[in-house]
Amino acid sequence: MSLPGLRPMAEKLFSDVRELTFDGVGVTRQSYGRGESDTADYLRAFAASEGLEVRADRAANLVFGLPQTATASAVTWCGSHIDSVPQGGNFDGYAGVVAGLLCLIAQKAGGTPYARPLEVVAFRGEESAWFGKAYMGSGALFGKVSESDLALKQRSTGESMEACMRRCGADVEAIRAQQPLLDKARIKAYLELHIEQGPVMVARQLPLAVVSGIRGNVRHNRVVCHGDAQHSGVVPRWLRHDAMFAVADLIMRIDEHWRVLLERGTDLVVTTGIVSTDPAEHSISRIPGQVSFSLEARSKSTDTLEAFYQLVRAECGSIERERGVRFEFDRRLLSDPATMDEKLCGVLSEACAAQEAAFELIPSGAGHDASLFANAGIPSGMLFVRNQNGSHNPHEAMDIEDFMLGVGAMDAAFARLK
Amino acid sequence: MSLPGLRPMAEKLFSDVRELTFDGVGVTRQSYGRGESDTADYLRAFAASEGLEVRADRAANLVFGLPQTATASAVTWCGSHIDSVPQGGNFDGYAGVVAGLLCLIAQKAGGTPYARPLEVVAFRGEESAWFGKAYMGSGALFGKVSESDLALKQRSTGESMEACMRRCGADVEAIRAQQPLLDKARIKAYLELHIEQGPVMVARQLPLAVVSGIRGNVRHNRVVCHGDAQHSGVVPRWLRHDAMFAVADLIMRIDEHWRVLLERGTDLVVTTGIVSTDPAEHSISRIPGQVSFSLEARSKSTDTLEAFYQLVRAECGSIERERGVRFEFDRRLLSDPATMDEKLCGVLSEACAAQEAAFELIPSGAGHDASLFANAGIPSGMLFVRNQNGSHNPHEAMDIEDFMLGVGAMDAAFARLK
Repeated sequence: MSLPGLRPMAEKLFSDVRELTFDGVGVTRQSYGRGESDTADYLRAFAASEGLEVRADRAANLVFGLPQTATASAVTWCGSHIDSVPQGGNFDGYAGVVAGLLCLIAQKAGGTPYARPLEVVAFRGEESAWFGKAYMGSGALFGKVSESDLALKQRSTGESMEACMRRCGADVEAIRAQQPLLDKARIKAYLELHIEQGPVMVARQLPLAVVSGIRGNVRHNRVVCHGDAQHSGVVPRWLRHDAMFAVADLIMRIDEHWRVLLERGTDLVVTTGIVSTDPAEHSISRIPGQVSFSLEARSKSTDTLEAFYQLVRAECGSIERERGVRFEFDRRLLSDPATMDEKLCGVLSEACAAQEAAFELIPSGAGHDASLFANAGIPSGMLFVRNQNGSHNPHEAMDIEDFMLGVGAMDAAFARLK
Repeated sequence: MSLPGLRPMAEKLFSDVRELTFDGVGVTRQSYGRGESDTADYLRAFAASEGLEVRADRAANLVFGLPQTATASAVTWCGSHIDSVPQGGNFDGYAGVVAGLLCLIAQKAGGTPYARPLEVVAFRGEESAWFGKAYMGSGALFGKVSESDLALKQRSTGESMEACMRRCGADVEAIRAQQPLLDKARIKAYLELHIEQGPVMVARQLPLAVVSGIRGNVRHNRVVCHGDAQHSGVVPRWLRHDAMFAVADLIMRIDEHWRVLLERGTDLVVTTGIVSTDPAEHSISRIPGQVSFSLEARSKSTDTLEAFYQLVRAECGSIERERGVRFEFDRRLLSDPATMDEKLCGVLSEACAAQEAAFELIPSGAGHDASLFANAGIPSGMLFVRNQNGSHNPHEAMDIEDFMLGVGAMDAAFARLK
């Protein structure tokens, strides 16, 4: 059966699992928990009925392939995750697994065989919503889940990650020892289809996009600007040390640098998600003496993050001198970007073009399992499918036409890999 | 006895009342309550011992004068208030009463008699800290205390203003009827000495200042900027509607207009005392979808307040268009400025010059009883005395030298009034 003919199967795979994990509002597939395991069981049964082989790896992820593929010395991996946030959408993660399975089905039904056989991986535990840590299923394969991670508690049940993983069949002792649980050399490429979680493709009318890289970030959870709290009526402008005006000044300087950097082709987003005058002392008729705020910059480029960060610190110094305030920074947190493989981006772009789909290269602002493969040195690539209403909410809306276009592009890409 | 010789008496008046109303941290003189009444009783006894006459008016304020002054058909009034904020400073209000009393004592002791006799008024209930309403004692004289004001509850005891006033001897029925309780025609001028509650005179090294006017204000308690809350990583700059960047933009536009207006000689201060992203939904990795803030502008000029306000609204409109956000305003609150009498400002300036004291004209950002007299059409003037560490706190620090210089200037001013 040809790929386009698999559309009804795709629709059934989506609607069955939605029904299975519907919570009354959205879908809930707990990482290393019920909704995720129900989905895994459903997919096992589906694979058996379609004549696909399936095995669980030592982190309890599922790996699907055609018969005999498990013994192949070189494979292409295609994967994504089957967990969701609480009351999440049906497509975040799961769409990538369905895409891979459809490609296997098409292979089995007599499509032109891929030069390098395909395995499809359904990861567990990608969402940080449940244990406060992301990429548990893929991370465990690379020895990135530590003993202290295993002690983290599930947000609803309070059970430890260790207990939840063990119940799903994971080799907790090997994970705790942070052993590599994967033969990296065997995996020649990792490809992942995922819905876009932002609004760019809808705005740009692109059904598909090739992901150029996954943004890293630099963060401060809490910066405090100290000024001088005084009566709002009696202190003239030249004697004020208004912490709020200072923070507004900083944000506008950041906004201006950001605008200029974008015009020079730099990848960057900046957010001050939490800003507040001090509730213990603020009032309408009081000059704010203290304002706290969070600061986050994300970019595909570590150099950009570092340069931008230094620019922000320099502006803080300048504002301190000009406004007589003081900025106090908590610990700086850094998360590395992941670079998608240039050749694979090229292959995916050709594959999109072969589908006659409008596409562009865009960065991924959210993290994905693909970043762990890329940072482990495995050539990795990602394809985004258009999706309305953002993600991590029940209103995700991926058009099945767009999805099938994406599956076609993935299939075309797999066919090009040697 | 000459005025300079009264310095020990001034010191005793300050230290006795401080001791009487000390709360362990600062002084506490509850409006129409204990600390205020203790101070009133102390001053009655002082007046009796010094041969001054004293009477209570129908709002329970005390009026001091030389014998026979009460029957004079034209008088100068000098006053201020004897209540304080909780854990306040010893000089806010009380200094003005002491200054007036010293002038009376000097008159009695044979100073050159004023052409127009002086009465000194010690107001109750000036601070809004206790009932949420300011100028109760002076306001009652002008029919400005309403039935709903009388129902306000004292912050600590929960007693109504009416009950507290009645216990102090006020004519609550007349106050509720908002009858004028004062023969305005008899009072030819109202002068008030007060400590400066801001930092200007310390910064400018001025022991005295003549108050050019009392600022009014325009306020919004709560403006809400509505943007679009989205994942911080996945939305590029051109698709963002960041409520916090919009508010920072507004504050910086306000700051720039303010700077330019000051350079053109306009009197203005602007404050955004309360600013906050929405605690119900804000997070480090979320573009703020809602920011609320307070906005206050103060000026001696109603025209400036109105023009500046319209400028702010126009900038909000511009930011709405540029950033795709929406500003939502609560009810606009307006409090009228009070203009000090030009002639009295001249008299006070001459009096300062005669003391060989460095002085300037400066606006008062805080409100004072004087504003009620000015807005009732009684020519009014104010003299500020230098004070460290602001006001409404236990750290007020007025130098007794500066104070005696101020008393000398008040005396010289009274001597000039005909």
